[in-house]
Amino acid sequence: MNVKALVAEFIGTFMLTGAVLGAAFYSFGAPAGAAGIVGVALSIGITVFATARAIGHISGGHYNPAVTLGLVAGGRFSLGDAVPYIVAQCLGAIAVTAVFATIGNAPATYAANGYGSLSMINASLTSVLIIEVVLTAFFLIVIMGSTRASAPAGFAPLSIGLALTAIHLMSIPVSNTSVNPARSLGPALFAGGEALSQLWLFFVAPIVGAVIGAIIYRWLDE
Amino acid sequence: MNVKALVAEFIGTFMLTGAVLGAAFYSFGAPAGAAGIVGVALSIGITVFATARAIGHISGGHYNPAVTLGLVAGGRFSLGDAVPYIVAQCLGAIAVTAVFATIGNAPATYAANGYGSLSMINASLTSVLIIEVVLTAFFLIVIMGSTRASAPAGFAPLSIGLALTAIHLMSIPVSNTSVNPARSLGPALFAGGEALSQLWLFFVAPIVGAVIGAIIYRWLDE
Amino acid sequence: MNVKALVAEFIGTFMLTGAVLGAAFYSFGAPAGAAGIVGVALSIGITVFATARAIGHISGGHYNPAVTLGLVAGGRFSLGDAVPYIVAQCLGAIAVTAVFATIGNAPATYAANGYGSLSMINASLTSVLIIEVVLTAFFLIVIMGSTRASAPAGFAPLSIGLALTAIHLMSIPVSNTSVNPARSLGPALFAGGEALSQLWLFFVAPIVGAVIGAIIYRWLDE
Amino acid sequence: MNVKALVAEFIGTFMLTGAVLGAAFYSFGAPAGAAGIVGVALSIGITVFATARAIGHISGGHYNPAVTLGLVAGGRFSLGDAVPYIVAQCLGAIAVTAVFATIGNAPATYAANGYGSLSMINASLTSVLIIEVVLTAFFLIVIMGSTRASAPAGFAPLSIGLALTAIHLMSIPVSNTSVNPARSLGPALFAGGEALSQLWLFFVAPIVGAVIGAIIYRWLDE
Repeated sequence: MNVKALVAEFIGTFMLTGAVLGAAFYSFGAPAGAAGIVGVALSIGITVFATARAIGHISGGHYNPAVTLGLVAGGRFSLGDAVPYIVAQCLGAIAVTAVFATIGNAPATYAANGYGSLSMINASLTSVLIIEVVLTAFFLIVIMGSTRASAPAGFAPLSIGLALTAIHLMSIPVSNTSVNPARSLGPALFAGGEALSQLWLFFVAPIVGAVIGAIIYRWLDE
Repeated sequence: MNVKALVAEFIGTFMLTGAVLGAAFYSFGAPAGAAGIVGVALSIGITVFATARAIGHISGGHYNPAVTLGLVAGGRFSLGDAVPYIVAQCLGAIAVTAVFATIGNAPATYAANGYGSLSMINASLTSVLIIEVVLTAFFLIVIMGSTRASAPAGFAPLSIGLALTAIHLMSIPVSNTSVNPARSLGPALFAGGEALSQLWLFFVAPIVGAVIGAIIYRWLDE
Repeated sequence: MNVKALVAEFIGTFMLTGAVLGAAFYSFGAPAGAAGIVGVALSIGITVFATARAIGHISGGHYNPAVTLGLVAGGRFSLGDAVPYIVAQCLGAIAVTAVFATIGNAPATYAANGYGSLSMINASLTSVLIIEVVLTAFFLIVIMGSTRASAPAGFAPLSIGLALTAIHLMSIPVSNTSVNPARSLGPALFAGGEALSQLWLFFVAPIVGAVIGAIIYRWLDE
Repeated sequence: MNVKALVAEFIGTFMLTGAVLGAAFYSFGAPAGAAGIVGVALSIGITVFATARAIGHISGGHYNPAVTLGLVAGGRFSLGDAVPYIVAQCLGAIAVTAVFATIGNAPATYAANGYGSLSMINASLTSVLIIEVVLTAFFLIVIMGSTRASAPAGFAPLSIGLALTAIHLMSIPVSNTSVNPARSLGPALFAGGEALSQLWLFFVAPIVGAVIGAIIYRWLDE
């Protein structure tokens, strides 16, 4: 196991989660010129694009436990390496939540994912489950297809990163958008309460969706 | 007929239509940070870019019956293959409308296309016809030019996808933007009533526009 | 003179001006989800990117009399070909203004450029002159640098198109953003009155700026 | 020392700072269709992308004293050349602030960076210090990784430019976003008072962050 790959996964997940938290804590409902959902969606999409373009070659640029496990299901990553990757990702997400909590101005929920009262539109557990499974499956199809050997060089970080922008535009009001258990973990630990008790769903749904998406892509392109 | 190409068209149209419905149902008028027209426009443009980048090589990445028929008129696709493509596209759009209807929070119109009371600015049938024909013709010119043999590798999905962002910014308040009969079909079936009785227009106008655009491009670049 | 190049300039300027008018007439202040300045800026930037990517190889993709004359000053285009190009561009801009006027819902000013009461912030003639000169000079530097022989293939339409997005974000409230005499001509003809009497400024300032930018770039990179 | 490189740094920093000031003075809180934080973030990100794509080959495209010093720490630029680069960058930022001050409509703070009453959310000096260090470190990782020798040609300006969009979405309400001492210098000189007395922080924090980021990247990829 290459320690630099793990540090790259830590940094990438730190920045991915930070892109959501920074935009959500400060710009989403800013006193002037509030950026709202569009701001959060662009922040995460562009950050993942830039991070993957810059350091994706070091670790593969997962930054997401569901992606790591989806790539295992898709035959692109070894299960043995998945555990240290996921640990590095979770530590990165927790670290950046701590940094932004120190900067301050965080809402009580820390932008945690959730259903019911934690959902902007009061979505049910089932609704959140469906949208997270569908969108993570979509995300894995984009990842596996964009990184296939025959794809034009250089575009994968752009399509993968910006896919997260679209995914957030489709689902922030439903679940606050996870598709990434590490991104869910950091805020839930700081928010506690309901956010923490719902955290299991944001491990289960994205991972199930990722595996489904990887299997679909594998069949489509074999 | 390759079944994988049909599944790819199903998935692509599922995601294209889902990008509109997800952003329109949840983020457009969200209780906080509403994303509005810019959100829907970015959601569909980026989703088509990412999907075409990932799985466009499997089916050609039409995701739109008007595109399929325009490419037939432009000499890029065979008429015999058009029918199964269009069936797959329509099924994809219907399927994702069913999924988002299950998730809930859909407006009564299901973001259907329309004129008169279904148009945000109460546009007439003629106004909707003109804008849909003009913008679909533009869309086909972008598609055929971006995918010409001499174009730089890799950029076609980006120019084609983002062209939909611009098209939506120009026309959501007029017709709710179709330029795609499959995208119109799904919501109309669920909304019924006026939306369903106006559906013919969103088959006729995009297809007429697509054929015009394809013929213009063919002449321009022969 | 190649008639197809002139038709390509007509179509390109038709779509460039249409991207502004469509977004400005319908989405800028839409009854719901209004897209505002960001919407207009993205609409024109993306449209120019997609159009130049698709048909830029046919005419060089100017779509703007100031660009054509700037490229003459920069040694990239012949003065003899400039006149028919500019005529085609002006006709394209007038044609699309007629189309959008027919669709309807146009404001009384037809999104014309202007100073004083035609400027959102009531900017003076001098302020408008300065910002139009500076931003068109910037635009020509981007165009000439992005299309230099040693630039990586394929990116020029993206940097040139999106530069217009940034230019509009900097100047819509000042001058409604011209940097393009053809884009100014169409709406001024339909608006008449003050817009028409100020039209000279949006020929002079962008052309002066374009020539300055081209000379700067030529010196920088000779 | 190549004078054209210095002119290119002057122009690049002129446009980078102008992209912030133009969007912040005019579009951020425009009388209609205000672009807000999203508008400023897109304006600077796209402008840096387009400028670096066009003239980045002349000087390396720093446009930022923290980037220049970070690249020295990262072993990519010589310390001897850093001083004239930084002087050119500061002059560019001051020049464009003078131009936009002449155009008018500037707020009393000239969009200066700051903490306390100069911060939209009244952030403390410590909060501003943390966010500026973290985000400039991220910026240098993106720059060094995107411009490594093995990166696909052409994408570096896009990932570097758009990274600034994400950075602004994360931090405008905290510090008004510097990550660039030259961008801070221009407005502080014109605003005077509190903005000027806080200016030191926007030299220290971005430079410290840039050096940290460069060292991290150097270790990661050696």
